Amino acid sequence: AIAFVGTATAADLKPEEQIQTRQAGYSFMSWNMGKIKANLDGDYSQPQVEAAANAIAGIANSGMGALYGPGTDKDIGDVKTRVKPELFTDQEGVGEVAVAFIEAANNMAETAALGDEAEVKAAFGKLGESCKACHKKYRKD
Amino acid sequence: AIAFVGTATAADLKPEEQIQTRQAGYSFMSWNMGKIKANLDGDYSQPQVEAAANAIAGIANSGMGALYGPGTDKDIGDVKTRVKPELFTDQEGVGEVAVAFIEAANNMAETAALGDEAEVKAAFGKLGESCKACHKKYRKD
Ligand code: HEC
Ligand code: HEC
Repeated sequence: AIAFVGTATAADLKPEEQIQTRQAGYSFMSWNMGKIKANLDGDYSQPQVEAAANAIAGIANSGMGALYGPGTDKDIGDVKTRVKPELFTDQEGVGEVAVAFIEAANNMAETAALGDEAEVKAAFGKLGESCKACHKKYRKD
Repeated sequence: AIAFVGTATAADLKPEEQIQTRQAGYSFMSWNMGKIKANLDGDYSQPQVEAAANAIAGIANSGMGALYGPGTDKDIGDVKTRVKPELFTDQEGVGEVAVAFIEAANNMAETAALGDEAEVKAAFGKLGESCKACHKKYRKD
């Protein structure tokens, strides 16, 4: 549960709220990745995969970079973060993984809309790689 | 931070993970609502509003109902929930607010893509009402 419920319309989040909101975005994407995986491993529901892919693409394109503001590089009280310091200094590297991620998410959404399962599998693999590429460099285990 | 990081691809979430994931979805929508509001109150950036609206619509259409499974009606250890028991019994009422919400979110995304600020303001107002309608009936204060 996040503390800024009362100020749901405030655009400027406190550092601890930025950390919680980026974690919320990643967690929600992760749930949707799991749904796509389950569809590929079992009975394939094109509408469910398309919906999951659209949720991921919507989040990927929402400008999550704004949730890495000053003061969000360290734990703030109970609000823990796993971000590595490199994310705040390696601008070029971050730009590369971020662009690759957004492209993979958009490709996934487009492919899911068409519905060919083999192509979806390939797009899903690429998207998963793009998550991992960022985690490897910028997220603590 | 959510505990199921290690099992990012598992589709079947434990009850406590379902609670955390639905809260994550709402929190992430809330951040995007705040961005749209800030745009309407200040300088209007059509791309930013469109991206925020797409994130909200993507989440709204992702089937969050699946995150209200058995055992998710009460706190589970440290994982607190504000859901009211009525959400699990009033199927018809929940269906109504859920459909209204999804329609308002889709309308918001379509309107944001066109970019007329007055229409976006109206669509945003309707969308906010659809959040509140659900909270009033099914969320504790
Ligand atoms: C169909 C019902 C429903 C709709 C529609 C809905 N909500 Fe909620 N919302 C809930 C419930 C129930 C909870 C409590 C979840 C819990 O604690 O398990 C909640 C919780 C929240 C929270 C707190 C999340 C947290 O971290 O604890 C926020 C913020 C929120 N909603 C914002 C919104 C916004 C913004 C919208 C619309 C864009 C929206 N909600 C639409 C039912 C709804
Ligand atoms: C541009 C970098 C980047 C990309 C791309 C990225 N992540 Fe992450 N992810 C992070 C960082 C950094 C954290 C740690 C955030 C924190 O704790 O403040 C994180 C945290 C997470 C978490 C834990 C969230 C929590 O509740 O603590 C999950 C789950 C996750 N990512 C899944 C994903 C998935 C799935 C994708 C792709 C669909 C993805 N990530 C793409 C950088 C990224």
